[in-house]
Amino acid sequence: MALIVQKFGGTSVGSIERIEQVADKVKKFREAGDDLVVVLSAMSGETNRLLDLAKQISDKPVPRELDVIVSTGEQVTIALLAMALIKRGVPAVSYTGNQVRILTDSAHNKARILQIDDQKIRADLKAGRVVVVAGFQGVDENGSITTLGRGGSDTTGVALAAALKADECQIYTDVDGVYTTDPRVVPQARRLEKITFEEMLEMASLGSKVLQIRSVEFAGKYNVPLRVLHSFKEGPGTLITIDEEESMEQPIISGIAFNRDEAKLTIRGVPDTPGVAFKILGPISASNIEVDMIVQNVAHDNTTDFTFTVHRNEYEAAHKVLENTAREIGAREVIGDTKIAKVSIVGVGMRSHAGVASRMFEALAKETINIQMISTSEIKVSVVIEEKYLELAVRALHTAFELDAPARQGE
Amino acid sequence: MALIVQKFGGTSVGSIERIEQVADKVKKFREAGDDLVVVLSAMSGETNRLLDLAKQISDKPVPRELDVIVSTGEQVTIALLAMALIKRGVPAVSYTGNQVRILTDSAHNKARILQIDDQKIRADLKAGRVVVVAGFQGVDENGSITTLGRGGSDTTGVALAAALKADECQIYTDVDGVYTTDPRVVPQARRLEKITFEEMLEMASLGSKVLQIRSVEFAGKYNVPLRVLHSFKEGPGTLITIDEEESMEQPIISGIAFNRDEAKLTIRGVPDTPGVAFKILGPISASNIEVDMIVQNVAHDNTTDFTFTVHRNEYEAAHKVLENTAREIGAREVIGDTKIAKVSIVGVGMRSHAGVASRMFEALAKETINIQMISTSEIKVSVVIEEKYLELAVRALHTAFELDAPARQGE
Repeated sequence: MALIVQKFGGTSVGSIERIEQVADKVKKFREAGDDLVVVLSAMSGETNRLLDLAKQISDKPVPRELDVIVSTGEQVTIALLAMALIKRGVPAVSYTGNQVRILTDSAHNKARILQIDDQKIRADLKAGRVVVVAGFQGVDENGSITTLGRGGSDTTGVALAAALKADECQIYTDVDGVYTTDPRVVPQARRLEKITFEEMLEMASLGSKVLQIRSVEFAGKYNVPLRVLHSFKEGPGTLITIDEEESMEQPIISGIAFNRDEAKLTIRGVPDTPGVAFKILGPISASNIEVDMIVQNVAHDNTTDFTFTVHRNEYEAAHKVLENTAREIGAREVIGDTKIAKVSIVGVGMRSHAGVASRMFEALAKETINIQMISTSEIKVSVVIEEKYLELAVRALHTAFELDAPARQGE
Repeated sequence: MALIVQKFGGTSVGSIERIEQVADKVKKFREAGDDLVVVLSAMSGETNRLLDLAKQISDKPVPRELDVIVSTGEQVTIALLAMALIKRGVPAVSYTGNQVRILTDSAHNKARILQIDDQKIRADLKAGRVVVVAGFQGVDENGSITTLGRGGSDTTGVALAAALKADECQIYTDVDGVYTTDPRVVPQARRLEKITFEEMLEMASLGSKVLQIRSVEFAGKYNVPLRVLHSFKEGPGTLITIDEEESMEQPIISGIAFNRDEAKLTIRGVPDTPGVAFKILGPISASNIEVDMIVQNVAHDNTTDFTFTVHRNEYEAAHKVLENTAREIGAREVIGDTKIAKVSIVGVGMRSHAGVASRMFEALAKETINIQMISTSEIKVSVVIEEKYLELAVRALHTAFELDAPARQGE
């Protein structure tokens, strides 16, 4: 008998019919003997409706009061599901974040969970009840309602699983798992049976938006096994867990991630003096522009070139800041390019395999794709290429790293 | 500087525009130096929308879970008003029933308030904040959300006023006060400056649905001055308070109430034995049918006639029950009439004035209106007449008791 936390998102509870379907699914698990805590989002569209009401009063609604309004969305779905379960003869009870008590800090609209009181939930589980908890919300020490920010229901699920030491936290979504890459780009993309937290983080931060990054970090920190599944299709989904190094034949690469949202900026002919990197990036971060990849070439003739990428929306702003900096430090010129894409290979297996990067470069060279920037981490190699080659590059890498194979062994 | 509790109903907060208007009104009071606690209902239509969602899951939704859903209606309006006030530079904070803490029993959907913690509210008032509280809801000792039943926001307002020893509880509605009778029937009907709790109770129970009966009882019990006002028109409204017997020229009658919702049933030729009244009404109340007026004529020939009124919707059911009873106790026959109306004169002044009833009967006789039943209490005389004479009777009584006069003195 396992203790499972199941989280269903807004689309999965988007209508009465869907809530009834979720109840059917929960009932099946319950009948299989599992103890269940179900975390729900608001019905899809409801949070936006509530936000819109608040926006009609004020462009900048008071954060504390906004949380009072927005938190009602989940409050409705939890009670509807509890009713649907009881109708099916499954004892159930609903709790808001405050009722559980999910204690957070007071950073309204983007609060962080500090502590979860598991007493009520444990007592209900012991009494044979399914416990239905409102995701995305909590309460601060003054008793004010808080919300975790959009998409925060995943985090509620993981935090509850950690507090309860659950056997698994299941995140139900509109995809049936995590894929080796986007199936719309590579039809041979395969669902992964398993992926590590680190890999998932790299995949997620690179645009594979199956899970909230924060919930994956949280799950990794507390070692909560996470499983991504489809809400209404049967299937094992993808298990996200720690790298147990048990599988001898671990594949080198787990997936190919990519991102079209970046733009590249280069400041050329920078006098190569100590502290120049800070002089360039300081004003950028002071303007609240986030920088992703950073590359500095080796100096020659006492000058160097400095290149970095930003979100495409912030390209114009970053360009302006950089022009100023260039004048101040006596650099030659600023050039930029918005027609780029970033492609990354991700896998914990590359830690113990030499030559992964060169195998990547070789595959791209075979397709005569020029590499503009390279950045590496322990479990990832990213390159920036011309945007028009994106699909070609992803497909070439998917094949080169043997991800096309019909089934993955050794798990 | 007075402490005032103001309650606004669903229509008064039925749209963003109306909430902004309420904020303007509250701001004006605040600027006049009053300490304010504002109690709100859900936006009109919202409670029905939420009930409908629950009904789609189950015809008989679990009461505890229904309260979780329905209570979100007020949670949205309180935060919207708090935002609207803060936007106007008026410091404000919203509280749900649970946050205040309004402790109730656990009778979900029709809970009763047991206790109100006034600590938070007093601290906020002291800090200069307007406190906006969700009406109609509370929390039981297990931390489950409860609701007071429909229309219960009036009760929340009165209970808060009692707990805070407020100077006045203002109930904002869609009428500008309590009238001597329904102005649609008598164009000369006047707004009363003042009315006693007892009179208001009689008026309310007789169909003048300005206030919830329960909230008036509550206000009377705790001696909370209640004022009925129009949400969006200026004016002093009607003050409902204890009978201070200060006004020397207290009018005999404060108002004329009437009711078209009743039907009359008579069981004739009942053997006049002890306990026969119980034999007749016992089965009626066992069938959950509420009885209003009851009249038993003096017996002759050892039989008597027994007449009572019920709500018109329950006439058929009551008739059936009564037929059975008639057979069992050997009564002659059961007759009934649905085309009746009840007209009542209400006023604490009649306590000290003899001949009020006869003056009423005289006025009706002048119009040749036949009286079918009579029932009296300390501050009320009710008669049942043929329905078609209702308007005529109300107008005749309104004139006979000098309620048509343009202004009322002695207050």
